Amino acid sequence: MVVRENFENSLQELQVKMEEMTQLTVESLEKAFNALKTQDVELALRVIEEDNEIDDLEEEINQLAIWLMVKEQPVARDLRKIIGAIKISSEVERIADFGVNIAKATIKIGSGNSLMNITSLEAMKNVCITMLNKALISFFDENMALAKEVGDMDDEVDEYSDVTYKQLTSHLCEKQEETNQLVQLLFVNRYLERTADHITNIAESAAYLIKGRKYDLN
Amino acid sequence: MVVRENFENSLQELQVKMEEMTQLTVESLEKAFNALKTQDVELALRVIEEDNEIDDLEEEINQLAIWLMVKEQPVARDLRKIIGAIKISSEVERIADFGVNIAKATIKIGSGNSLMNITSLEAMKNVCITMLNKALISFFDENMALAKEVGDMDDEVDEYSDVTYKQLTSHLCEKQEETNQLVQLLFVNRYLERTADHITNIAESAAYLIKGRKYDLN
Repeated sequence: MVVRENFENSLQELQVKMEEMTQLTVESLEKAFNALKTQDVELALRVIEEDNEIDDLEEEINQLAIWLMVKEQPVARDLRKIIGAIKISSEVERIADFGVNIAKATIKIGSGNSLMNITSLEAMKNVCITMLNKALISFFDENMALAKEVGDMDDEVDEYSDVTYKQLTSHLCEKQEETNQLVQLLFVNRYLERTADHITNIAESAAYLIKGRKYDLN
Repeated sequence: MVVRENFENSLQELQVKMEEMTQLTVESLEKAFNALKTQDVELALRVIEEDNEIDDLEEEINQLAIWLMVKEQPVARDLRKIIGAIKISSEVERIADFGVNIAKATIKIGSGNSLMNITSLEAMKNVCITMLNKALISFFDENMALAKEVGDMDDEVDEYSDVTYKQLTSHLCEKQEETNQLVQLLFVNRYLERTADHITNIAESAAYLIKGRKYDLN
């Protein structure tokens, strides 16, 4: 019984680290987007710097997971949970990279020209953050309905992305001096679309934990 | 001695799978680029389909690595080798995703308008493939000089990327009907730049194996 209790404690520790990593990633996306909206290059630079913390947490999660596998030799659902932790932290790290990419786009845009309206990009960012929180909860609570909701929301992001692509490209040649900004915003649009894809992978890891087999949410 | 021999055989098996995965990824990049160059949508679709094979190989490598860790409880260099295999296969999978992204850009470009000159993108692709092969060899042969070469070549790709970005954006507004093509080529430029970054991560995994500590090649 003590062994099992220790194992449960270690799993709990793994969960806490994953929650912390996700929280930092949400903050990174929010900050990167604020930097973009307010053309705040300083804030963008901070997002890039702070990404190290997220990378370190992924490393810690991997080490804890590997230590747990070596020590406890878990099987079935326990093993799926630990492998899920490794896979999910790798996806979260990729998502945080998109935060960094948005920050880099912000720096490339600079503050020379005022920014065009980016409400559709902001809406995508908001949907992504809701998705990310739901995907994590679906894994921790083993909630299949929530995992499916994430898959549906990915379609929503894809639709936004198509509309935004058309909008941005239609403005491309109106003002020569804003070409660079529009190209960077097209990149941001792409990053957010990919963010939603990686969040959907997290929900698929949750589905794999729950169902015990690969599950396609898209 | 038999135990060690079995372990060496398993490591060898891991290496063979990693080589196979890398080979398929190189083929995917080459095919995706040929599809782009010849505006061959059929070939692009095939690249997307065949990506499953690469994903499956990553899964196999992960399972073998986990099984090895649980069974052999390796330490020091042996453990670093196995963790390196997991990390590298994850990077190779990301690189293959860029092949898929290039294929998707090819489909979006379609065959309506003839393609502009893409020799600088092609040069980047070629450097990336040389880098990828070098990075893998640096890991398997524990060759630090080769790992450093990869880091230097990443700078080369970044320079190409800056030049290509300027070229493509300068053409953006010349012909309205080619805007979509140019935006997609800007994406391809970005994918290749990121490909080189992920290959540099592989070389850093090699450096970690060799030096036993984190090593920044950039």
